[in-house]
Amino acid sequence: MKLAIAQINLTVGHLKKNQDKILNNIKKAQAQSVDLIVFPELTVCGYLPEDLLYHQQFIDDCLASVKTIAEQCHDICVVIGFPRNHPNEPEKRHNSAAFIQDGTIKMIYDKQQLPNYLVFDEHRYFTKGSHDGIVEVEIKEQSYKFGVNICEDIWNDAQIVADQAKQNIDWLINISASPYASGKIGSRIRMLQKRCKDNHANLIYCNLVGGQDELVFDGTSVVIDDQGQVLAQCKTFAEQLLIFDTQKQDKFITPRLNRLTEIYQALTLSTRDYFHKNGFNKAIICLSGGIDSALTAAIATDALGAENITGLLLPSKFSSTHSIDDALALAKNLNIKTHTITIEPFHAGFEETLSPLMNDYFKNLTDENIQARIRGVIAMSFANNQNAILLSTGNKSEIAVGYSTLYGDMAGGFAIIKDLFKQQVYELCEYRNSISPVIPQNTIHKPPSAELRPDQKDSDSLPEYDQLDAILKGYIHDFKDAEQIANEGYDLDLVKKILKMVDRNEYKRQQAALGPRVTKMAFGKDRRMPITNGYPHNYG
Amino acid sequence: MKLAIAQINLTVGHLKKNQDKILNNIKKAQAQSVDLIVFPELTVCGYLPEDLLYHQQFIDDCLASVKTIAEQCHDICVVIGFPRNHPNEPEKRHNSAAFIQDGTIKMIYDKQQLPNYLVFDEHRYFTKGSHDGIVEVEIKEQSYKFGVNICEDIWNDAQIVADQAKQNIDWLINISASPYASGKIGSRIRMLQKRCKDNHANLIYCNLVGGQDELVFDGTSVVIDDQGQVLAQCKTFAEQLLIFDTQKQDKFITPRLNRLTEIYQALTLSTRDYFHKNGFNKAIICLSGGIDSALTAAIATDALGAENITGLLLPSKFSSTHSIDDALALAKNLNIKTHTITIEPFHAGFEETLSPLMNDYFKNLTDENIQARIRGVIAMSFANNQNAILLSTGNKSEIAVGYSTLYGDMAGGFAIIKDLFKQQVYELCEYRNSISPVIPQNTIHKPPSAELRPDQKDSDSLPEYDQLDAILKGYIHDFKDAEQIANEGYDLDLVKKILKMVDRNEYKRQQAALGPRVTKMAFGKDRRMPITNGYPHNYG
Repeated sequence: MKLAIAQINLTVGHLKKNQDKILNNIKKAQAQSVDLIVFPELTVCGYLPEDLLYHQQFIDDCLASVKTIAEQCHDICVVIGFPRNHPNEPEKRHNSAAFIQDGTIKMIYDKQQLPNYLVFDEHRYFTKGSHDGIVEVEIKEQSYKFGVNICEDIWNDAQIVADQAKQNIDWLINISASPYASGKIGSRIRMLQKRCKDNHANLIYCNLVGGQDELVFDGTSVVIDDQGQVLAQCKTFAEQLLIFDTQKQDKFITPRLNRLTEIYQALTLSTRDYFHKNGFNKAIICLSGGIDSALTAAIATDALGAENITGLLLPSKFSSTHSIDDALALAKNLNIKTHTITIEPFHAGFEETLSPLMNDYFKNLTDENIQARIRGVIAMSFANNQNAILLSTGNKSEIAVGYSTLYGDMAGGFAIIKDLFKQQVYELCEYRNSISPVIPQNTIHKPPSAELRPDQKDSDSLPEYDQLDAILKGYIHDFKDAEQIANEGYDLDLVKKILKMVDRNEYKRQQAALGPRVTKMAFGKDRRMPITNGYPHNYG
Repeated sequence: MKLAIAQINLTVGHLKKNQDKILNNIKKAQAQSVDLIVFPELTVCGYLPEDLLYHQQFIDDCLASVKTIAEQCHDICVVIGFPRNHPNEPEKRHNSAAFIQDGTIKMIYDKQQLPNYLVFDEHRYFTKGSHDGIVEVEIKEQSYKFGVNICEDIWNDAQIVADQAKQNIDWLINISASPYASGKIGSRIRMLQKRCKDNHANLIYCNLVGGQDELVFDGTSVVIDDQGQVLAQCKTFAEQLLIFDTQKQDKFITPRLNRLTEIYQALTLSTRDYFHKNGFNKAIICLSGGIDSALTAAIATDALGAENITGLLLPSKFSSTHSIDDALALAKNLNIKTHTITIEPFHAGFEETLSPLMNDYFKNLTDENIQARIRGVIAMSFANNQNAILLSTGNKSEIAVGYSTLYGDMAGGFAIIKDLFKQQVYELCEYRNSISPVIPQNTIHKPPSAELRPDQKDSDSLPEYDQLDAILKGYIHDFKDAEQIANEGYDLDLVKKILKMVDRNEYKRQQAALGPRVTKMAFGKDRRMPITNGYPHNYG
């Protein structure tokens, strides 16, 4: 039998574009005499349409698309994902897979394990199915039996998979939209290998690829045999139509990327898809001469092309010469255009007008924020005028402790490095420079500073980043409390101070730009904290 | 038997403050020889702590608080809500109610119906319980039997309530955190009456009161007899310790508020709680002379006191004289202080610097946004300097179609009227003026304008607000598609244009300030739409 995995990049809600891509892949497979082609979860509408699923018209349109596709499926079996109404209770919905052969839907399986944790809200949208997912068809006058299941079904207890495997099937087919997180690809493949071995089943696993708002899907689809051996593995972060002949002994295994390459490609793909799927090509970015904006600019350039990037240098009276030199050197290396506009006249203007009306207590903070917000006004003007998206440059460590100005440096439509701790920012700069040296050494080696007052350093008000990142990771990723973190070798008062900063700055994060999720616990849909939250007082 | 309903206002996460308030209410009830006192859902931690529930320390602290409270419960029965670990699978959690008597927890019931729609995500946090909720105790040498259940348990199919009612109980006890929406109080009480009548059961129903981020709880707790008759009803939007002697025939029924009073009080309470629970007293508000900022200022003044409000008049060269006069008249009526700062010099400065760098195509839009963002810079400076929260003044109609500037008029920490359609804004202004005339007639009667270019009117680019609001309500509240809405008497092209504006401006809403939810479908947790969304192209 000839199998195909259509690891494709879909656009949520764009049924027409998705349908064209699906049909195009079916046609290519037909041309190569493929017997069975498998698509990712919720193929026709993309993953996840969220509350679009509450619109009956949307569900109807999805079903219509499946029927149109089915009509074109001659001499090939197709497994495709779509949302549908519960057959008896139409106000409920299923996350379903159709097995299509010769223009006919032979079987519909409805997902049973609905994830409802971290970024997932499938209980909000879907009802658990009850069909066994078994389908038996004739292919070239031979009978084949398949067990179809969807994403989460094969994780965790995997009862449905065990039940299907017991029914003497030829192949398990799992259609997935399993989002990327650093470290997850390896553990996902190991899990799939174990599932195959434990259940003595062969598996065709098709995963989605591409960016959807904060989520990025890596693909890395696989064919695994009943010994747990990977027979074929698709690319990571790229589309692929993989064709695999079960009669031949060839393995088609794309080598795995290393850790930093993987993260860098996740950020690049996520950025490109966010822009292009929303109809934008151009990005504006404020270049401070610092490492965060440098990495953001490098990724944006790789994602969108140098001709689409405008760098803004917006120095103040507190900006050092090296800031400007470093930013210009970066722009030259990346071959992106720049404008330099000193914010001093605006700053002086606001200061002159507002100073007499301000009290002393919060004057410094107020003044620092004014500078950041003047930059926001200028940068957004360029974004509006060029029909571009402003990139916000904050990293996870800064966003965690609120070391950023709302409507100032936080302004922007997309925040490429928001899920990278500061130390990962350094790692990724070194990684990017290992391909070609674009980020100036001085940017990497100078002490970080917001340059909002004379001789300011991040370390004036924050601990060194190795300490800060470790404390933040303990709290945010691992749900540790202050004492547990302090027991790992940190000062308890410092830990409490940091955790309080994290909690108190929730209001800023809830107005922040979204950005790609590359950990298991990003700021965004993963972590849902109340703003009004008396609990941090216990740390005080 | 003497019953008490402790309809109290709790602070999410502030276990100490909540515990003090709980103990204080128990003490007051004890002083009046109350036999049984009932508190709202998740009493010790407030509703809903969201991902705080993933911190084991938080769950442990909640249990410790319940134990401390139990120790003080002498000669009184107490029903109190708290989160707890599943007894056998500690990684799971229950939303629970403890029945306490004489220092001992006699029974723990775990919620069975977990809402996971609209603003609710209880499947994310809790596992369904299995205890029957029945408890039998001696009170003054007489035996009583109660059926305890929690909020959603009594809605919808209400199987647990029917099961409890069959067990010859004296009282059903439901502890709730049922958020307000306009029209919901009446339907909630009718539902409770029906439940009592259908199951021949007496009911003590205690609902939470107060604001928690976008949610506002109205209280309106009730005692209902087995005929469906309301015997006692607490206040709406206020704390109350209601004491009710079952031997006496007196009814204690606080009259219901009318529709507009209810909404106005919801907004006022929500604003006050958001500020005070987050440690703020002061608000900044930009007064444009228009109706949205006027209503926002009136509510803020009623919520926080005139002495805590600063109005900013930030006229541009496009501002009409009446704008300034109307804003000053409003401020005088409300007795709030103002500063007037013309933005023209800043606007001219940005224009001079940026104009040579801008292309023509988006120049007007860019220029309009610059004005709004200069106001944002100035207003946020006052907020930072006074340790105040800037109030954003957009209404639901504007926010829906994106008729607002990110980081400009959208800047702010709280948006009081974000869930009011424009027509409701007018209604509430008239309502507020019926108490005392604070909003100038000219503000109410002039045509709405953003005044960002000469002689601009909202109706230049939007339909009249009665049409706009009806179209938006059909799409957002009722999930209708373009054809269905057009069939109600609107031009199909206009409808499609409006729906497209709604979809395309999702990115703005995801960076908007939160504000009180007063409908069944607010922008916020109720409506979760993807930003990257190809579906609107189908309207094009």
